[in-house]
Amino acid sequence: MAHLISTSCSISIPSRSNFCSKEQNIVGTKVSFASFGSQVSSFSLKKLIHRGERSQRVCTIHATTLPLTEEAKTQPSSASTNISHEGSKKKRVMIIGGDGYCGWATALHLSKKNYEVAIVDNLVRRNFDQQLGLDSLTPISSIHNRIRRWKSITGKTIDLYIGDVCDFEFLSETFKSFEPTSVVHFGEQRSAPYSMIDRSRAVYTQHNNVIGTINVLFAIKEYSEECHLVKLGTMGEYGTPNIDIEEGYITINHNGRSDTLPYPKQASSFYHLSKVHDSNNIAFTCKAWGIRATDLNQGVVYGVRTDETDMHEELYNRFDYDGIFGTALNRFCVQAAVGHPLTVYGKGGQTRGYLDIRDTVQCVELAIANPAQQGEFRVFNQFTEQFSVNELAALVTKAGAKLGIDVKTISVPNPRVEAEEHYYNAKHSKLTELGLKPHLLSDSLLDSVLNIAVKFKDRVDTKQIMPSVSWKKIGVKPKTIAA
Amino acid sequence: MAHLISTSCSISIPSRSNFCSKEQNIVGTKVSFASFGSQVSSFSLKKLIHRGERSQRVCTIHATTLPLTEEAKTQPSSASTNISHEGSKKKRVMIIGGDGYCGWATALHLSKKNYEVAIVDNLVRRNFDQQLGLDSLTPISSIHNRIRRWKSITGKTIDLYIGDVCDFEFLSETFKSFEPTSVVHFGEQRSAPYSMIDRSRAVYTQHNNVIGTINVLFAIKEYSEECHLVKLGTMGEYGTPNIDIEEGYITINHNGRSDTLPYPKQASSFYHLSKVHDSNNIAFTCKAWGIRATDLNQGVVYGVRTDETDMHEELYNRFDYDGIFGTALNRFCVQAAVGHPLTVYGKGGQTRGYLDIRDTVQCVELAIANPAQQGEFRVFNQFTEQFSVNELAALVTKAGAKLGIDVKTISVPNPRVEAEEHYYNAKHSKLTELGLKPHLLSDSLLDSVLNIAVKFKDRVDTKQIMPSVSWKKIGVKPKTIAA
Repeated sequence: MAHLISTSCSISIPSRSNFCSKEQNIVGTKVSFASFGSQVSSFSLKKLIHRGERSQRVCTIHATTLPLTEEAKTQPSSASTNISHEGSKKKRVMIIGGDGYCGWATALHLSKKNYEVAIVDNLVRRNFDQQLGLDSLTPISSIHNRIRRWKSITGKTIDLYIGDVCDFEFLSETFKSFEPTSVVHFGEQRSAPYSMIDRSRAVYTQHNNVIGTINVLFAIKEYSEECHLVKLGTMGEYGTPNIDIEEGYITINHNGRSDTLPYPKQASSFYHLSKVHDSNNIAFTCKAWGIRATDLNQGVVYGVRTDETDMHEELYNRFDYDGIFGTALNRFCVQAAVGHPLTVYGKGGQTRGYLDIRDTVQCVELAIANPAQQGEFRVFNQFTEQFSVNELAALVTKAGAKLGIDVKTISVPNPRVEAEEHYYNAKHSKLTELGLKPHLLSDSLLDSVLNIAVKFKDRVDTKQIMPSVSWKKIGVKPKTIAA
Repeated sequence: MAHLISTSCSISIPSRSNFCSKEQNIVGTKVSFASFGSQVSSFSLKKLIHRGERSQRVCTIHATTLPLTEEAKTQPSSASTNISHEGSKKKRVMIIGGDGYCGWATALHLSKKNYEVAIVDNLVRRNFDQQLGLDSLTPISSIHNRIRRWKSITGKTIDLYIGDVCDFEFLSETFKSFEPTSVVHFGEQRSAPYSMIDRSRAVYTQHNNVIGTINVLFAIKEYSEECHLVKLGTMGEYGTPNIDIEEGYITINHNGRSDTLPYPKQASSFYHLSKVHDSNNIAFTCKAWGIRATDLNQGVVYGVRTDETDMHEELYNRFDYDGIFGTALNRFCVQAAVGHPLTVYGKGGQTRGYLDIRDTVQCVELAIANPAQQGEFRVFNQFTEQFSVNELAALVTKAGAKLGIDVKTISVPNPRVEAEEHYYNAKHSKLTELGLKPHLLSDSLLDSVLNIAVKFKDRVDTKQIMPSVSWKKIGVKPKTIAA
């Protein structure tokens, strides 16, 4: 169905880009987006000026859609969580990395829950796909179309700032313009295999993640001292110690004395290490500057559908199944759907925490609604169940049988350096105490992920399924992908 | 006394600098160094070509001095240590940051002990002084003159590679050219206050230190897999926990289980944090790639004279007393010498580990002579005694009285965020077990540091003594120093 869209759109770009750096350059300019829907839309660039000083020198795109051919629907709120921020001043949430897998689902969910939402993203995740010859299983729209579609359906605006948080000039302007009360920072290179492709990707990952987070910390200190930082960490920061994993801190009795100290970290890729570095940097700024921060040490996320992304195909989330960005369970479901054996790395005893993407968005909402105190560095372990890889393979095999699919499993040489049989018991009670109602990995849920995989199986590139990155073989020569 | 120096010198520069990038550009070129001694010396740039492929595209300077007007002296070996590497193939030690305070002393000491030594340095430490309007208390020669003088006195060659380890193309060429069996990595921004000047210095410090070390790890993996990395860390990585500080690892009993894990870190500046990041990155590569590494968590170094730097005034080491680079004891001695009250930050109960610079060089030598095993990440706490700031002030006051100086002490507001009264008991037995014979902070030693301060007191810029950098006030605007 074609939608007639008339959009009022404002754009400016940080001055160092030499593009639209002065307001008068863009007043009255018209830009045509021929790619949007079936009709050419025209964008008035006047709005920036009307927003006044807050928007100077920042790339901001606001999409408003009139007339609507689809009524703004009133959706039921997420059944499993009931978080209210009524009665207080409307919270303004900046979502860095809001075009990504967890970020997009979170942006829509918070917008639906009446938070003012801005997405800050440099769209580099889409560029990784292009460079590596990968693609999401689900077809995804451009961020501009996503946001316009959201507005057309719900009447809710999501602000968009296109740029890189490693560019502090850009980041400053987003803070001055949007004035966030919470910042959710998903804006990092988030794949362990990507960080282990070659030296330049290892360096990129640590530079991008560590410096981006330092910049966010400085922006909060300088422009929004009350702002609550919700930072995505990873359960992978802890590694697989032979004792219980606590939530961020552990009380140690040693030689007759006792102290509660940061839980020891044993990360196992340049990516995971970058998150450890972030945690240490953030903890310091909480202590030195009084930053309030929540570190969400997230497990492996599975699933793709949320209430909000289900509302329209232009709102679909990405679903990665490849050897670089695909996480274990999602990848297994795609393998099952296309008749590829499930690829267990090594012995398959690797145990990790997992959670449904609908719980990711719920956890972030809970963290925002219950912010850390001034100066507090709070750590939540964000997952709902733990499984070994072999257990996941068994679950997918069983779910496949119900759909009439005969699923096989093979062991492939482990491309990673990790324990393949180990003790694992990680605490995860803090988000539950705040009210998390988990979506557990029941058969029916697994079915829905499998069904998505089956639905889009013609889009699967089976060449991308096998692991292509070795922890031991990483070298200094830049790796490129042949056509 | 004037020394006539005839030097054979080879220079090439990594090709991306567009300078001397092709060999033919430099064959037969003569460069005059008017600043060296009282006579103009001429340098033949032919030597690079004669060294063959190993030296291509890298800035290498070899100074040989003929005729010598000063005989190569036979110096007694360091009285307090007796480390031999006779009988084995001559070890080739690359010292990154070999023009700095600890690096220069180490380079001379190892060269004296018959190691083949190369210095890799981008000389940025000297540039910091220029930018911030600071200077070493002791007058120091250029790195080129230092190395030539060393050769003229001892007959020993120190290779010099001028460049930045964050530039991997440069670093690769130094590895291919020098083929190190050990790399001692001092090449980091090493001042906590410097890292807290402004956002750009914080970012510089973490980028420079973290990426530089990642590059060194990749260079070892790619070009010298057997090479032992000796990395300078800091005792500041541990912070001031309320339990004993162990050497890198701690055995934790928790909920009926036990594991030996990395000791929890609580660093308190962007500089100290960068060293924590390094430690985590190195530990990972030891596990994943089999790198052999020793992390020397060094305490606060004091003193300036070593047997080798005493041999000639052109070999003098730098001595920092300013609020940015000056460490507590050295700064106190300068304050005493110029009649400035000793500036205790806050309550003065801050307790740290300290060591004499002669022990720094001894410790590095011990680490090299007793390398870590393949895949081992070994941590030594490198200090000999612990003192509170108030204890140091009392020691300097007493030593001053012996020299007839009436030393006063004042408390100034603490520019840092740190506990000013705390438990502190850090283990440091591993280097002792390897044979370290410490130079303790006896009265006579303190006298010698005080005497240096008195000798050069006319060079003291008292404006540089007070702390100028605040942990809490750091902001995003670049700070520059007015003339």
